[in-house]
Amino acid sequence: MPKALRPHPDRALPVGEAREVARRIHESTRDLPLLCFHGHVDVALFATDEAFGNPAELLVVPDHYVTRMLISQGVAPDRLGLPRRDGTRTAEPRDIWREFCSHWDLLLGTPSRYWLEHEFAEVLGVEVAPSAETADVLFDQISARLAEPEFRPRALLDRFNIEVISTTDAATDDLAHHAKLAADLPGRVIPTFRPDALVHLDRPGWSDLTRQLGELAGADTSTYAGYLDALRQRRQAFLAAGALATDHGHLSAAATPLDDSAAARIYESALRGEVSADDASSFAGHMLFQMAAMSAEDGLVMQLHPGVLRDHHPDIHAAYGPDQGHDIPVATEFTRSLRPVLERFGHADGFRMVLFTVDETTYSRELAPIAGVYPTVRLGAPWWFLDSPDGMRRFRELVTETAGFYNTSGFVDDTRAFLSIPARHDLARRIDAGYLANLVVEHRLEEDDAFQVAKDLAYNLARTTYIR
Amino acid sequence: MPKALRPHPDRALPVGEAREVARRIHESTRDLPLLCFHGHVDVALFATDEAFGNPAELLVVPDHYVTRMLISQGVAPDRLGLPRRDGTRTAEPRDIWREFCSHWDLLLGTPSRYWLEHEFAEVLGVEVAPSAETADVLFDQISARLAEPEFRPRALLDRFNIEVISTTDAATDDLAHHAKLAADLPGRVIPTFRPDALVHLDRPGWSDLTRQLGELAGADTSTYAGYLDALRQRRQAFLAAGALATDHGHLSAAATPLDDSAAARIYESALRGEVSADDASSFAGHMLFQMAAMSAEDGLVMQLHPGVLRDHHPDIHAAYGPDQGHDIPVATEFTRSLRPVLERFGHADGFRMVLFTVDETTYSRELAPIAGVYPTVRLGAPWWFLDSPDGMRRFRELVTETAGFYNTSGFVDDTRAFLSIPARHDLARRIDAGYLANLVVEHRLEEDDAFQVAKDLAYNLARTTYIR
Amino acid sequence: MPKALRPHPDRALPVGEAREVARRIHESTRDLPLLCFHGHVDVALFATDEAFGNPAELLVVPDHYVTRMLISQGVAPDRLGLPRRDGTRTAEPRDIWREFCSHWDLLLGTPSRYWLEHEFAEVLGVEVAPSAETADVLFDQISARLAEPEFRPRALLDRFNIEVISTTDAATDDLAHHAKLAADLPGRVIPTFRPDALVHLDRPGWSDLTRQLGELAGADTSTYAGYLDALRQRRQAFLAAGALATDHGHLSAAATPLDDSAAARIYESALRGEVSADDASSFAGHMLFQMAAMSAEDGLVMQLHPGVLRDHHPDIHAAYGPDQGHDIPVATEFTRSLRPVLERFGHADGFRMVLFTVDETTYSRELAPIAGVYPTVRLGAPWWFLDSPDGMRRFRELVTETAGFYNTSGFVDDTRAFLSIPARHDLARRIDAGYLANLVVEHRLEEDDAFQVAKDLAYNLARTTYIR
Repeated sequence: MPKALRPHPDRALPVGEAREVARRIHESTRDLPLLCFHGHVDVALFATDEAFGNPAELLVVPDHYVTRMLISQGVAPDRLGLPRRDGTRTAEPRDIWREFCSHWDLLLGTPSRYWLEHEFAEVLGVEVAPSAETADVLFDQISARLAEPEFRPRALLDRFNIEVISTTDAATDDLAHHAKLAADLPGRVIPTFRPDALVHLDRPGWSDLTRQLGELAGADTSTYAGYLDALRQRRQAFLAAGALATDHGHLSAAATPLDDSAAARIYESALRGEVSADDASSFAGHMLFQMAAMSAEDGLVMQLHPGVLRDHHPDIHAAYGPDQGHDIPVATEFTRSLRPVLERFGHADGFRMVLFTVDETTYSRELAPIAGVYPTVRLGAPWWFLDSPDGMRRFRELVTETAGFYNTSGFVDDTRAFLSIPARHDLARRIDAGYLANLVVEHRLEEDDAFQVAKDLAYNLARTTYIR
Repeated sequence: MPKALRPHPDRALPVGEAREVARRIHESTRDLPLLCFHGHVDVALFATDEAFGNPAELLVVPDHYVTRMLISQGVAPDRLGLPRRDGTRTAEPRDIWREFCSHWDLLLGTPSRYWLEHEFAEVLGVEVAPSAETADVLFDQISARLAEPEFRPRALLDRFNIEVISTTDAATDDLAHHAKLAADLPGRVIPTFRPDALVHLDRPGWSDLTRQLGELAGADTSTYAGYLDALRQRRQAFLAAGALATDHGHLSAAATPLDDSAAARIYESALRGEVSADDASSFAGHMLFQMAAMSAEDGLVMQLHPGVLRDHHPDIHAAYGPDQGHDIPVATEFTRSLRPVLERFGHADGFRMVLFTVDETTYSRELAPIAGVYPTVRLGAPWWFLDSPDGMRRFRELVTETAGFYNTSGFVDDTRAFLSIPARHDLARRIDAGYLANLVVEHRLEEDDAFQVAKDLAYNLARTTYIR
Repeated sequence: MPKALRPHPDRALPVGEAREVARRIHESTRDLPLLCFHGHVDVALFATDEAFGNPAELLVVPDHYVTRMLISQGVAPDRLGLPRRDGTRTAEPRDIWREFCSHWDLLLGTPSRYWLEHEFAEVLGVEVAPSAETADVLFDQISARLAEPEFRPRALLDRFNIEVISTTDAATDDLAHHAKLAADLPGRVIPTFRPDALVHLDRPGWSDLTRQLGELAGADTSTYAGYLDALRQRRQAFLAAGALATDHGHLSAAATPLDDSAAARIYESALRGEVSADDASSFAGHMLFQMAAMSAEDGLVMQLHPGVLRDHHPDIHAAYGPDQGHDIPVATEFTRSLRPVLERFGHADGFRMVLFTVDETTYSRELAPIAGVYPTVRLGAPWWFLDSPDGMRRFRELVTETAGFYNTSGFVDDTRAFLSIPARHDLARRIDAGYLANLVVEHRLEEDDAFQVAKDLAYNLARTTYIR
């Protein structure tokens, strides 16, 4: 007999005296609208509003949390349908789905398991757990459901109670989908400006992208000054399309400005295809400072996501491209790295920076002390691997005593997996409810304050961080 | 109706089965005398025994934990009365107090909140919570109380049950206040020798201070040998004034000795105003080793507080001076850095070193292993941002299994805020009681042992660490 | 009246609702056979099967966890009987034992205390706690017991329910004891190949060992090629003797290959006694890569234990030799350091690497992300100082959400202290039971899954990690 899938109503809440308090707190936040100010859902989904395909292509192939776990236990990427760069066909959806279902137990104890159980039970109406035996039935059942009109992306936007969702868009994106959405769903689906590919001079394709940037912006990117001007103009275009923020993924948080002539010299060497790795790295740090300067001018909130060594395995990268789970964090430094930005803009009106990390050692040592004094800095939600029950609990335990609650920026789901969004926000609200409930029963916080803080963490802080 | 301020008797104790045990343990330590062997209360307070002024100047302006949190949420330093270096008048006490009271909720979940609630309720007899509405009443009520004789510093010394309190004094301090106190309150208020300003050759004012050192010591500081001699003599003067310890705040824990000629050469370059940043940094490390050598001779306990990048924001530093909350920790290394000192003095009779950190990653990795084998090393209490309920709990969880209880040095309050001292010790005793109670109910420690350990942590270990 | 020694049946299990669940889980794993695939018990013990001597030489002198704690509180190494290199007699067994018993309270809160209480009560039948008063009685009682036939090593192997135990053997060991054991107890006591002394070119005695290696392998180690060949042949000899794994203790995890001519050049400089520290360090990293390459060929599981600065105190090392408790961890990096190995062998069939650390900061930041994607990597059990109740709990909390359960490798006791082996496995099973029980009562794991995972962690994962 297949095992029932029934996420418990008290899941991820604390036990003992704290449970009852946590339940009440969670009840008070569970139905608040979702603000999704940082994520990676494809804008085309909302622009075209087409039905999702099959469960494998919706829930497995694009979810690197899931595929990496299966790969780690010896399932070949091809069997999971990871799209090969050379276009070679890999696996069939139904076979991918069987592979996933028969390895369901690998996800025990992981956040993917909580999210997926929530999605299965509460979004897709699935009542049995995935397994080799149930794989085919689930495939058919979910496929049928996805064909129904109420499972179209825009319908789910309503059902999920999503007030605003930001996508993440390359600086060279033409924003056509966003233009359509601004007309259809004003203010509800907005872009985020991501210039990473333009500020890392040694990445393949940089010069083509830079030329494209110039064309889009009507600026001459054959000079450094023109390049800065083009970036400034694209930021304006994003602002006009409703953007509230920029996003920056750098290996290091270093943000040391170069002088103009040095920056121009490096930029020109890159145009000639002759930039050194060291120069490219200095330039990336320089541009982080420039982006802060532009944010101080135009008001776009600057989100920084440093500290991940991308594409750790070259053969995987060559075969399948980036973002295939082979990205590994490194130790990250903020205190010295961000000093130039904070010296200049740390107390500047109009500037706002949200800091994320995958290096938990920086929570109590650097990030909470920084956010606990600089009025322009907020701490982002636990990111990537840390967006998990224990990861979120540790975040609160490690930052609250120094940064308080009000220097954190609210939850962001940061996901490509649209169907997981309610599950992710719900899990965050449960963990915060549990953290607050523990403070209440230890008489470190009064219950009425806990309710107010819970609402602020679940909704108000995201709003006031990004909309100013 | 204003909200009542009533710190719960069980605050910061664990829940469930452990609470009853924790209560009993806390009861057994709560009335032990306070040993305050490291702190920053102004000696003049006790020497003159004048009444405190108003609540703003007592509880807000000098408390950088409080002011940094308000600044982080956009309250300008001037509105908090931070004294400007240029002497410009900033805010009036009553306005500062209103600013503080109306932002009371920013402190939710922080140790400042626990300390202040304790001070308000148990020291000052305040019965309503601070808020915009209650600010004026509280200002007047506390002001009146501070004018009463039993709120004079020396009266509070008795009421707080403080057995000994150490101040922290520049090596160039003339110790006149301490001389008076040695007569009035023998052995109760003692100095600590802090030579930081003299060993960092590139700090502004170094050469004046060094000249002053020479004068005080009757030694010729125009040579490196005379400088060492002057330091040695000042240490003797501090010893004569009752000092038990020295204190060293360095950016790094590096303590690598130079050879004499290299040290002399750098010292002389500094006298000429020509020292390089690298040389100054090497010299600071060299002097850390020299200070260890002197401690091995004269028996002053050596306290090391490394790893904070001071004055992170130059404009704030220029306007308001040091210690205004803009000090941010950095990753700190002990294993290699302290090796020269430990090779030489780690097993030396008469040497004693107490290590503090704001980098929690070093607790289990470096500090507990070091203190768990070197007989001269003790681990200091969780420092600065870590002197908080969860911070203190993590300290015990991360060091006890390797270093045991008896290689830790007891609690130090490390504060300028005299009125917060009982609150800080009480909170530490609660957290230790809770930690021990959890071990008891998990059958990892027997209850009679827990009572003995609690007493040792609360009182005996501080005594045996500093008085030898 | 002496204090009774009665380890509580629920020791180290969680409190509250989780206890009953944890008890049931622990009951389901407590009697599973022990797989001891990494440890340091002396093979001669099993080969000769002689009776153990006195309690001091069995339980105190060789246990650096115990001796370091006593040394840290001022007990001189000589009084603990640490054998001096010069052969000087130090203390008598009974005096050592008295020293240990009278300092029993120093071990409060440490894992040594739990292990020893378990050994005393459940292995040796001791019923009173050690103390100055009970020292002599215990010495006599334990000495008498150790003389009984059922306390011989092989009898204990049965009583402890040890299915397989690996020793750790220098690559130059002749494996004579293992040959005898392969005949007497086939497959039960097996060697592990440890080449550390041969790959660190600047350690004293390297050239003698290398000559010895050549002789054992019948290869010419006067060339680099011959040296590699000799290592390859010794690995075959270990395989033939039943070895499943190699073990590598390096200061850094760096594993960057040199090209052959550079490696040969450094090797030759070492033969001439002229190797520089930098070259020796590069060569060690190169050999880590070579060892991975050989593991990929011959299938020996590669265990890596990096990040400990050995022999931190030169005088102690000079007087007493290595492994005397003066080994201190340093910050360790894996993401970049292991990249060359993972690029080449991270997805290679037949390769298997088990990673250990004493730097907990790497758990969530580097190790779990690496093991959570590379099919060849498993995370080793919490090592050394971290093999403790809170250390093991933190390990699960910090790695499970990213790496799951099935990328961890099961418990290894890693000890020289044969009598502590059941205590160590039991404590690990208790902590895992508690971790799983907490997940169950927080509705993050279903109870039937928890039982399966517990069995996998306690037995199956060790088996499938090492036997392939």
